[in-house]
Amino acid sequence: MSMIIERLTVIGVGLIGGSFARALREAGAVGTIVGVDTDRDNLNQALSLGVVDEITPDVARGVRDAQVVFVSVPVCSIPMVVREIAPFLPAGCIVSDGGSVKFAIVRECEALMPPGCTFVGGHPIAGTEHSGAAAAFAALFTGKRCILTPTPATDAGAYDTMARLWRSAGANVCSMEPGHHDRIFAEISHLPHVVAYALVHAVGTADVEGENVLSYSAGGFRDFTRIASSDPVMWRDITLMNRAALLTSIDGFSASLAELRRRIDCSDPAALAEFFTIAKQFRDGIL
Amino acid sequence: MSMIIERLTVIGVGLIGGSFARALREAGAVGTIVGVDTDRDNLNQALSLGVVDEITPDVARGVRDAQVVFVSVPVCSIPMVVREIAPFLPAGCIVSDGGSVKFAIVRECEALMPPGCTFVGGHPIAGTEHSGAAAAFAALFTGKRCILTPTPATDAGAYDTMARLWRSAGANVCSMEPGHHDRIFAEISHLPHVVAYALVHAVGTADVEGENVLSYSAGGFRDFTRIASSDPVMWRDITLMNRAALLTSIDGFSASLAELRRRIDCSDPAALAEFFTIAKQFRDGIL
Repeated sequence: MSMIIERLTVIGVGLIGGSFARALREAGAVGTIVGVDTDRDNLNQALSLGVVDEITPDVARGVRDAQVVFVSVPVCSIPMVVREIAPFLPAGCIVSDGGSVKFAIVRECEALMPPGCTFVGGHPIAGTEHSGAAAAFAALFTGKRCILTPTPATDAGAYDTMARLWRSAGANVCSMEPGHHDRIFAEISHLPHVVAYALVHAVGTADVEGENVLSYSAGGFRDFTRIASSDPVMWRDITLMNRAALLTSIDGFSASLAELRRRIDCSDPAALAEFFTIAKQFRDGIL
Repeated sequence: MSMIIERLTVIGVGLIGGSFARALREAGAVGTIVGVDTDRDNLNQALSLGVVDEITPDVARGVRDAQVVFVSVPVCSIPMVVREIAPFLPAGCIVSDGGSVKFAIVRECEALMPPGCTFVGGHPIAGTEHSGAAAAFAALFTGKRCILTPTPATDAGAYDTMARLWRSAGANVCSMEPGHHDRIFAEISHLPHVVAYALVHAVGTADVEGENVLSYSAGGFRDFTRIASSDPVMWRDITLMNRAALLTSIDGFSASLAELRRRIDCSDPAALAEFFTIAKQFRDGIL
């Protein structure tokens, strides 16, 4: 594959940022990759493992001459990082991100772009339970979806460059409006996390004659609630940044649960079997 | 280990009933094991695999001379099977079960016992995703908990025999009141299933501008919702048989979810992080 850009800067060389770098290098899609990270040990490791070619802890120096800056830091820090780099962006630079919330990020970051620079929101649907530059690998995005969220303000050439880069990294690129993205991920990702946290909270605080109910948990409960072991700070930020869509999703779920509760309450075998069967069909459909 | 009983009858030679038979034989705790099953192919397989020594499709013949009859059929069928065998039980016979709901089963089955016979409710906390006699193996209960649920009507000798059998099968036996059992399992098992079914139902029916939201599901959603692929008929029966305790558990969960929703709604970062951290601590505590 031919080179798409000469110089890429990755801010936050963790699992996602590092894998993006590795995948693009393997594809021959970039010349030089510069890594920026506040964690000095992680940054040194990124260099010594060959994830990036140059490193600096200084964002201003890091974005110098970059054609694309990929910001891969926790969602609530993305606008802050973009605000920090904005004065130093070279003319024509594209800034993109990998955050799992898009509307608030795109709105803020677009407004921060100096004339001639473009922000292109992105969300690769990939990950593992590991983190840090050492966890990065080139095939992370192979066959996975990467959603780009252009707006009327997005430069077409900039969008095209980001789409080509993600395709080079192995991803299937699709495009949607930032608010639409957030409503979908409120349902399929943010709601399940909120439900898992609420469930573990409820069972953990349940008072069954003073007994520690959690000591009776078997494999099913452990599998079901694994996502409640995710980073509380990350989920605090995601729920706050996607608040409106998430509240709608929670209300939709509460309505489904209330309907199921009603069918249990009136002991209606046929109505219960119907509800469980519909849900099972939805679930089996995604296998 | 020395023999505990001479003759055991297992009604329903599936994963649980078959593994109980295999474990007791391996331990040398029983003489002859008789298998009864409505599925003729499964029954023949149980015999040819050596899970049981004798087979019959006829429950009356099956329980003849049995010291212990272990009923391992779907929860809603347990009282029906016990009603069917009651007239044929030999004097002093112990009847036990492996159902995951206890209060309703124990109450019904105790009332069905002829004079001199005792029902001892049981619930081994073990299983795999497989079913049938061919899936049975002796080590299924090793190190797992088996809960026995005696009542004031339970003969002490009968309870002791069942406890010794389960210990021979490798299980850690504990004892609790049937209603207490049901309140614990409403929380730790039945509630998570109800929540998973409601979640998949909600996401599957969510209308995000006509898009099929489920097509965006990644590994996390699949893991989280796997239990919504369980048998709808089994879960219909469990929810109906443990209705009162389950409704209480659903209400406790709804209160936790409402509290979390409130913290998202008022965008309180500290209160949100606190909620997620408490839940994560509960979850990490069961690892």
